[in-house]
Amino acid sequence: MQTLPRPVLQALVGDEAVEAFFSNGAELAAMLRVEAALAEAEAKVGLIGNDAARRIAEVCGAFQPDWGKLAEGLARDGVIVPEFVKQLRAAVGEPHAKAVHLGATSQDIIDTALVLRLKTVIAVLGERLDTLIQSLDGLRRRDGAVRLMAHTRMQQALPFTAADKIDTWLQPLERHREALQDLAPRLLVVQLGGPIGTRGELKGHGDAVADAMAGILCLGLAPSWHSQRDRIGEFGSFLSLLTGTLGKLGQDVALMAQNEVGEVKLATGGGSSAMAHKSNPVPAEVLVTLARFNAGMLGTLHQALVHEGERSGAAWTLEWMVLPPMVISTAAALSRTREMIAGLTIAPSKAV
Amino acid sequence: MQTLPRPVLQALVGDEAVEAFFSNGAELAAMLRVEAALAEAEAKVGLIGNDAARRIAEVCGAFQPDWGKLAEGLARDGVIVPEFVKQLRAAVGEPHAKAVHLGATSQDIIDTALVLRLKTVIAVLGERLDTLIQSLDGLRRRDGAVRLMAHTRMQQALPFTAADKIDTWLQPLERHREALQDLAPRLLVVQLGGPIGTRGELKGHGDAVADAMAGILCLGLAPSWHSQRDRIGEFGSFLSLLTGTLGKLGQDVALMAQNEVGEVKLATGGGSSAMAHKSNPVPAEVLVTLARFNAGMLGTLHQALVHEGERSGAAWTLEWMVLPPMVISTAAALSRTREMIAGLTIAPSKAV
Amino acid sequence: MQTLPRPVLQALVGDEAVEAFFSNGAELAAMLRVEAALAEAEAKVGLIGNDAARRIAEVCGAFQPDWGKLAEGLARDGVIVPEFVKQLRAAVGEPHAKAVHLGATSQDIIDTALVLRLKTVIAVLGERLDTLIQSLDGLRRRDGAVRLMAHTRMQQALPFTAADKIDTWLQPLERHREALQDLAPRLLVVQLGGPIGTRGELKGHGDAVADAMAGILCLGLAPSWHSQRDRIGEFGSFLSLLTGTLGKLGQDVALMAQNEVGEVKLATGGGSSAMAHKSNPVPAEVLVTLARFNAGMLGTLHQALVHEGERSGAAWTLEWMVLPPMVISTAAALSRTREMIAGLTIAPSKAV
Amino acid sequence: MQTLPRPVLQALVGDEAVEAFFSNGAELAAMLRVEAALAEAEAKVGLIGNDAARRIAEVCGAFQPDWGKLAEGLARDGVIVPEFVKQLRAAVGEPHAKAVHLGATSQDIIDTALVLRLKTVIAVLGERLDTLIQSLDGLRRRDGAVRLMAHTRMQQALPFTAADKIDTWLQPLERHREALQDLAPRLLVVQLGGPIGTRGELKGHGDAVADAMAGILCLGLAPSWHSQRDRIGEFGSFLSLLTGTLGKLGQDVALMAQNEVGEVKLATGGGSSAMAHKSNPVPAEVLVTLARFNAGMLGTLHQALVHEGERSGAAWTLEWMVLPPMVISTAAALSRTREMIAGLTIAPSKAV
Repeated sequence: MQTLPRPVLQALVGDEAVEAFFSNGAELAAMLRVEAALAEAEAKVGLIGNDAARRIAEVCGAFQPDWGKLAEGLARDGVIVPEFVKQLRAAVGEPHAKAVHLGATSQDIIDTALVLRLKTVIAVLGERLDTLIQSLDGLRRRDGAVRLMAHTRMQQALPFTAADKIDTWLQPLERHREALQDLAPRLLVVQLGGPIGTRGELKGHGDAVADAMAGILCLGLAPSWHSQRDRIGEFGSFLSLLTGTLGKLGQDVALMAQNEVGEVKLATGGGSSAMAHKSNPVPAEVLVTLARFNAGMLGTLHQALVHEGERSGAAWTLEWMVLPPMVISTAAALSRTREMIAGLTIAPSKAV
Repeated sequence: MQTLPRPVLQALVGDEAVEAFFSNGAELAAMLRVEAALAEAEAKVGLIGNDAARRIAEVCGAFQPDWGKLAEGLARDGVIVPEFVKQLRAAVGEPHAKAVHLGATSQDIIDTALVLRLKTVIAVLGERLDTLIQSLDGLRRRDGAVRLMAHTRMQQALPFTAADKIDTWLQPLERHREALQDLAPRLLVVQLGGPIGTRGELKGHGDAVADAMAGILCLGLAPSWHSQRDRIGEFGSFLSLLTGTLGKLGQDVALMAQNEVGEVKLATGGGSSAMAHKSNPVPAEVLVTLARFNAGMLGTLHQALVHEGERSGAAWTLEWMVLPPMVISTAAALSRTREMIAGLTIAPSKAV
Repeated sequence: MQTLPRPVLQALVGDEAVEAFFSNGAELAAMLRVEAALAEAEAKVGLIGNDAARRIAEVCGAFQPDWGKLAEGLARDGVIVPEFVKQLRAAVGEPHAKAVHLGATSQDIIDTALVLRLKTVIAVLGERLDTLIQSLDGLRRRDGAVRLMAHTRMQQALPFTAADKIDTWLQPLERHREALQDLAPRLLVVQLGGPIGTRGELKGHGDAVADAMAGILCLGLAPSWHSQRDRIGEFGSFLSLLTGTLGKLGQDVALMAQNEVGEVKLATGGGSSAMAHKSNPVPAEVLVTLARFNAGMLGTLHQALVHEGERSGAAWTLEWMVLPPMVISTAAALSRTREMIAGLTIAPSKAV
Repeated sequence: MQTLPRPVLQALVGDEAVEAFFSNGAELAAMLRVEAALAEAEAKVGLIGNDAARRIAEVCGAFQPDWGKLAEGLARDGVIVPEFVKQLRAAVGEPHAKAVHLGATSQDIIDTALVLRLKTVIAVLGERLDTLIQSLDGLRRRDGAVRLMAHTRMQQALPFTAADKIDTWLQPLERHREALQDLAPRLLVVQLGGPIGTRGELKGHGDAVADAMAGILCLGLAPSWHSQRDRIGEFGSFLSLLTGTLGKLGQDVALMAQNEVGEVKLATGGGSSAMAHKSNPVPAEVLVTLARFNAGMLGTLHQALVHEGERSGAAWTLEWMVLPPMVISTAAALSRTREMIAGLTIAPSKAV
């Protein structure tokens, strides 16, 4: 049976553009950029020759791995890099094979390749946040004067306006926008530590190589942070705070869209297989789903802060399972909200 | 760049055989089985004609959907069934189109199609549990007399034997084996309720249709459980208990495999990209990862027990995001453990 | 300032009767019962004299510890038992001091003392479940014919009756009642393993002592389960499933109690400090709170399944922090539901 | 039986100084400060008379509530404020009773009273972080040159120094110190919104009253944030990141303290009730416990971001259950770490 490569559920809870950053191909491409940058940086400080760096850059630009063996290597070694480096060295060939990955460790490549992609992800999330804030500003300008009924503890409280309601959605989003800018320079730093995080295999040139790599990759500089996962934990927290705010917005819309309340109309309600009259607030519900998903994943991601020793296979692998779905859920939540707001009309409360 | 359809990380934390039950194709196939069974059951009680049921069965046996439209429908309606039924009705054609999905609701199809696949999953997990228990029994027979050092609070306590240690792994696995058999009849029940869970659209034949469907699909019978998600929550708990036991086993092996302790040797240690001398206890670490992942996911799955009204889009969608990864992680943990135990030798403690 | 010993928040989310099982005094009393039973069992098999057992029983019946030193001991040793046994031995005096706690380890005492109290807790939860089921049966008899509007995805679906709605609350409660009976014999088993779980310090009489202890304490018998925490994890799961069902019931009531919907009236709505007209569905909201709390705590409790070695201080202590609040929240949820149902009237939907 | 008012477990996982901020008395005292500040601010803008504000301040300074009725009120209203204001008004007496709590809502009082205490908590945590950083700096100076073995994936990797190891503990702590200062001005803001968050009951003086209150209470100013819980979620994330770092430190120490490794000696190892020779790394284990506890609680706290409508009883109450234990666990983790480091000696690895 011919089918889709992408799980069809992702059409509801995923985001194709951001999923792409976590594809096999995107990860490989980022790893190749990191190996090339490492070689270039090492050539700069004289650890390897310029011809070696050029050869490595050339091969990295067109490298086609044996994916089956990469998967086997990952299953065996717990990380894809040993097999990847083996294949890459073979492709680079003599006399430069040994110049590949010199003095680095798997985690340097994987973490930096992650950070490289998160840099673009952060740009995407930032743009979407901007767009959403503008969209909500527009809704506020257009429908802000509509009289609504405020509800506390799920009971009618007192009348207020749509602008009052929208403000409670906008204000945290503006804080998240600022938070994203604040955290970016902390998160978007190169990882380079070598086998045990001391840059000891780089013969006294470790800091210079890291500095050069950061420059080449347009990332910030930091000491090796192999076993210090607070940056990842902080980013996860940002994601969950953002989806939490959007989940609150979604919950509000789902409550306002109740037939009995009728304070919002959605452009495109979801249909039912059994009840033709229904118009379901599907995007509003999905926002609640994504908020609760990310909240639970955040609690799981923070378990990975207990990263024993100089590198924990157990904790690090847990990050790999948890962070990408959180990023994708956040991107999806931003998209779903923007689409929903674009088609949303606020109607006066019947109760005021 | 040519790549793999499957995320390469799954080679480490996934299980290809069990992932297959959650593919687009497998879900569609299960949904088609359910629609065909529904039609057959409805023909049995006279709600539709036998020729309609035959035509539906025939079409379900060879149906090729428009996947792109299914994805669009899912994104719009929050559930794939409305668009799926539309396509299926078109394929069935007149005069039997209306006999498709008669009196059912999306959730009847989705939940029963899930349960159908969980039935096979449970058989697979049960077999793997049996195999693992046998494998541990074998290890106990072969290495049980080896003298080890017991550790409490991560300090050497007193000497004991490998058999004593293995018993602490085996006993909970035996309880899990029994628990799986106990919960199967509770979980593996047909879902049939119609739009609001009352079987009200089935003109007095609801219970008979459900009974017939259950018979056709070899599932148990229960009242509609649309908004009662305790069965799903209970199954999730089983999965996390099992991976918890395997995570404990993995943590023990990783501690025993420390160079300083040397109480186990693994057949195939993971290699390092930087340190050729290393032999990493990768499968043991992965078991810890999977245990912590499932524990966190369980806490998230139980959030979906708060299923408002007769059907919660928000809570139900959360299940879709959480349960399949839990099942896959459990299957993967069983495989990783079995492979690890197969190649594991227990060595006498240097300390006793 | 004179105040309450109990955190005032517990009046809302706690349960005084069940909190009492987790007080300092209750834990001490249970530990004394366990030490006395251990001595009695050891006398029975001849490990200590009958006069020693009698003296220990006598002292355990009236023992007053130095609480300050117990707290210091707990902070120092990570478990209260070493200091407790020291004080108890001093109270028993010569020549029987050494007969106290003979061949046992801290965990034998703490776990068995927990199980002893859980036995009563389970009885209390069972009675409350029975009462609640009866109460819902009564509501169903009285108001079951009232016409309500079913809601799916937070939208009006089709009319049905209060009985249909109540059934979706009752059915899982009946399953929980059965589950509680099923799990009780698995959970309510004596813990006796000695320092490393092998009963090795009991000179060949380990199983006989465990058997006798189980008889004296009216608990089941099992091999030592120091590092096998699946029973605790399973019980936690039961608690969260139950509060999940009650949280669903609470969410339904809060939605039905909306002014715009008006399908239920609560006897005593909560008042507002600012809006005299309001009648808030406080118990319904609290049920949602307790469900989400327990779901999150369950995910945390299952992290403690990864119990390294023969005894993990880290994982075991995590259980101590998590399980009691879960039990108390469950007891509170049952009480809040019963009180709410007792004063709840179902009113016909304005929409049907 | 005479016992302790404080659960004895808190001696291990609690912190008496910080627990005190969450006592009944401390909450009441903070609420009284808020009501007095509200009155003073309202007098300043002319909403109430100066004599009324003076009388309220005087009564707030010496108020003794009926705690039993406060608890009853909390159970009934879901929040303590309605009954508290009733009692406070009675104590203030005529003619100023009505000037108490004028234009405010329960959440204004509760949230501001929380923030007031968090201000001191943040100061305490900051000081402890400073002290701990100094203590680790001291350890680094004294023992930094000691040769240790780095471990990756729980296997010996390469030799390095104690300074290298300590750096991986210190660096995130320094980031946490900075993060605490960054978040404080976002978190420590007055809550004033009135019944529906619009300051509408303050007759056009809402912003001026909030401004004056902020000045009196030495808090920052912000629009009402009743339903915007990102500040609380962000603070929770900070707490979990900090305990995560300390949990990693604890896990490292527990691994280094293994008899087989012997890289650290703790001043005071925990004793065993059964094995006199043991010296357990109790504080190190507790740090792991507290990290895993807070991670799980964070996932639960973020569920409360989905705060429906203008005030969610369900979500807000969940915060009350989750945030205080997180704060206390963090304070405890800082204390336990400081004590442990004070008595910790690093010993050369036998393996290098």
